[in-house]
Amino acid sequence: MTTEPSRMAAAEALRVDARNNRTRIVEAARLLFAEEGLDVTMTDIARHSGVGVATLYRRFPTKEALVAEAFAEQIELCAAVVEDALADPDPWCAFRAVLEQVCAMQAVDKGFTGAFACRFPDATVLDGLRSRAERGFGELARRAKASGELREDFTFDDITLLLMANGGITADSPESALAASRRLVGLLLHAFRADGAEPLPPAPRLELHHVVRPPTAR
Amino acid sequence: MTTEPSRMAAAEALRVDARNNRTRIVEAARLLFAEEGLDVTMTDIARHSGVGVATLYRRFPTKEALVAEAFAEQIELCAAVVEDALADPDPWCAFRAVLEQVCAMQAVDKGFTGAFACRFPDATVLDGLRSRAERGFGELARRAKASGELREDFTFDDITLLLMANGGITADSPESALAASRRLVGLLLHAFRADGAEPLPPAPRLELHHVVRPPTAR
Repeated sequence: MTTEPSRMAAAEALRVDARNNRTRIVEAARLLFAEEGLDVTMTDIARHSGVGVATLYRRFPTKEALVAEAFAEQIELCAAVVEDALADPDPWCAFRAVLEQVCAMQAVDKGFTGAFACRFPDATVLDGLRSRAERGFGELARRAKASGELREDFTFDDITLLLMANGGITADSPESALAASRRLVGLLLHAFRADGAEPLPPAPRLELHHVVRPPTAR
Repeated sequence: MTTEPSRMAAAEALRVDARNNRTRIVEAARLLFAEEGLDVTMTDIARHSGVGVATLYRRFPTKEALVAEAFAEQIELCAAVVEDALADPDPWCAFRAVLEQVCAMQAVDKGFTGAFACRFPDATVLDGLRSRAERGFGELARRAKASGELREDFTFDDITLLLMANGGITADSPESALAASRRLVGLLLHAFRADGAEPLPPAPRLELHHVVRPPTAR
């Protein structure tokens, strides 16, 4: 016979279980989206998170819902970085701050790039946030050009190029990856400046074999 | 009863077969090494090349022998690029030419990076060639610093960083990848110059979603 306290304990255990499942699903999805893009199937996500497909669909009825939850935090962070920069009265500082912060986040969390680069068919709130961040960044670039500090031939494609280049960095530890990323961003900011000449971050300690063999992928 | 000509034809067919097997093995190995690094097993290479493991070991008794053959062409090419540059009397042109050519090769052939970055435990000829290329490049950097054109705080790690960054580029076609790579190398050469100011290659046409979803990987 089941007593009231034990029924409550069982209900609590179920809630904990559901919460753990949800966390595991979102973490597995974030990893798979970041590694393989949004074409990953729900079946793959279920397998990697160790829950059944039925459980997965009970938590996230559509893949879009899962995509949105997996990337929400990063999109919001990115939007906040741009918002902060827009409030900075120094055009070059504002422009530089966004690149430095976004690339630092990307260097220690590849999922961040996914958040910035993926399309969210049904996640209108996130799409809205991201569009606003992109428009905001466009405004920062416009101001930096107007102040004569950002070179005239800078385009938004250069940001994509920077994100790709930064995404290519692999190192033995998040600290090394971050140091390498800082150097790369420093070099590219130097190249983006209309007038040149800013001191660079220190040279990274990199192993040439990491160019093809990221230790994180082993 | 087997006649002499038919025996010869059979022997020829066997030779062609062996040559085809060898080619398939080397191509599969090059691809797997480039994608996954040198930890790929001989069994994996046999499976991907469609030959038996016994055949694979008959052609390449050690993995090192296979690694050396898979990357020989690229190492030789790279060494030749450095040799040519060493003969150039203009220090900056010579330095720039190596970076531009190596990165262009890498942009259209990821295997090239593998060749440059892998260790060849038993392939002393290749190791020798590569060491000579690295020493040669060091000399080119020294000359470019001495002429006041390369910034003093440039280090060999910046080359590794450049190769990683360049390796991060993904695009819809080899042409787009090459255009993006040219822009990136142009930006970084600009940043490497002690005095700044060289015109940049045109901005690439890139899709932001390629940052996480290389079309070649699908």
